[in-house]
Amino acid sequence: MPNYKLTYFNFKGRGEIIRFLLAYTNTEFEDHRIEYNDWAQHKSSYPFGKLPVLEIDGTVYNQTLAIGRYLAKKAGLTGKSDLDDLRIDAILDTIDDFVSVFPWTGDEKAVKEYMDKSGQPVLAGLEKALGEKKWFAGDYVTWADFYWVTSSDGIAYFQPDFVKNYPKLLALKKRVQEVPEIAAWIKRRPQTIY
Amino acid sequence: MPNYKLTYFNFKGRGEIIRFLLAYTNTEFEDHRIEYNDWAQHKSSYPFGKLPVLEIDGTVYNQTLAIGRYLAKKAGLTGKSDLDDLRIDAILDTIDDFVSVFPWTGDEKAVKEYMDKSGQPVLAGLEKALGEKKWFAGDYVTWADFYWVTSSDGIAYFQPDFVKNYPKLLALKKRVQEVPEIAAWIKRRPQTIY
Repeated sequence: MPNYKLTYFNFKGRGEIIRFLLAYTNTEFEDHRIEYNDWAQHKSSYPFGKLPVLEIDGTVYNQTLAIGRYLAKKAGLTGKSDLDDLRIDAILDTIDDFVSVFPWTGDEKAVKEYMDKSGQPVLAGLEKALGEKKWFAGDYVTWADFYWVTSSDGIAYFQPDFVKNYPKLLALKKRVQEVPEIAAWIKRRPQTIY
Repeated sequence: MPNYKLTYFNFKGRGEIIRFLLAYTNTEFEDHRIEYNDWAQHKSSYPFGKLPVLEIDGTVYNQTLAIGRYLAKKAGLTGKSDLDDLRIDAILDTIDDFVSVFPWTGDEKAVKEYMDKSGQPVLAGLEKALGEKKWFAGDYVTWADFYWVTSSDGIAYFQPDFVKNYPKLLALKKRVQEVPEIAAWIKRRPQTIY
């Protein structure tokens, strides 16, 4: 069993998909959390000055989705075919584009403008891509479903009802939160405001 | 042999990694190019209103890196292990972050500011990640090496000498351009200014 150490900030953010994937397989890991106010003094120690990173047996790996894909393979949460993986990766990158340029400063006007102009069309597209399927991939859960939950949680802090017009995406979120290992993680994880 | 149709604009941009990957395996594909001035009338026909898309036997797939990863698997240009793939994916996403927020309007002041503040640290990190290795993965070429070339080409249009302080990244670019199938593609592709 490899030794895992996740380093991220003391909030959910981009680190949470990695925590979900490790929790899903009941994998023990060190959940190292740096206080955001202390970040300046640590930044230069990390690849490209960014978090999260995952250490696997002492080797440091960076980039959220690269780490996520690695763990998803181990967890059996990737596609059943290369074409399924293509579809799953497209959903993941669409969600990632959406959250990457979100105005995380939380400025109310900027959030509203972004959501109206860019956010809502993405949600409409994701709702359509999900369609009548249970999960994004069809009849089996993948890490794209998890990423929808961890990403939308962050945005909901700033605009709580932003998914209200998308009942399928709301139902998907609930389904993920009810996966037993995820429900257990949500219950035991450190409480942070976002 | 599946039928491939790539739809993108009449320039290299984000479409070029897909063209590289198809060219590398000598795969025939329809290279459909939409004039940027005509885009507004076509935009709503494409998933999330974005290009490139690749049609495979009539089914439309979106997101550059999702498509790229699928084709790279077919081409034998992914990692030799899951950990190699993690490293390769991290390089790909780092390059992608770099180009995604680049000020593509080309405003001279914005380009200079972005490159000084964000671009150069990324280049320094990539130069370090490459180190003394021949390719990003080590002793074998992957699509991360290709993505470095197609992405840096776009930026070079606006700031021609931006890689000058990174001899290893420059040498890598030359090595990719000398891969016989890539060299042949570069020779026969439509000439566009960027």
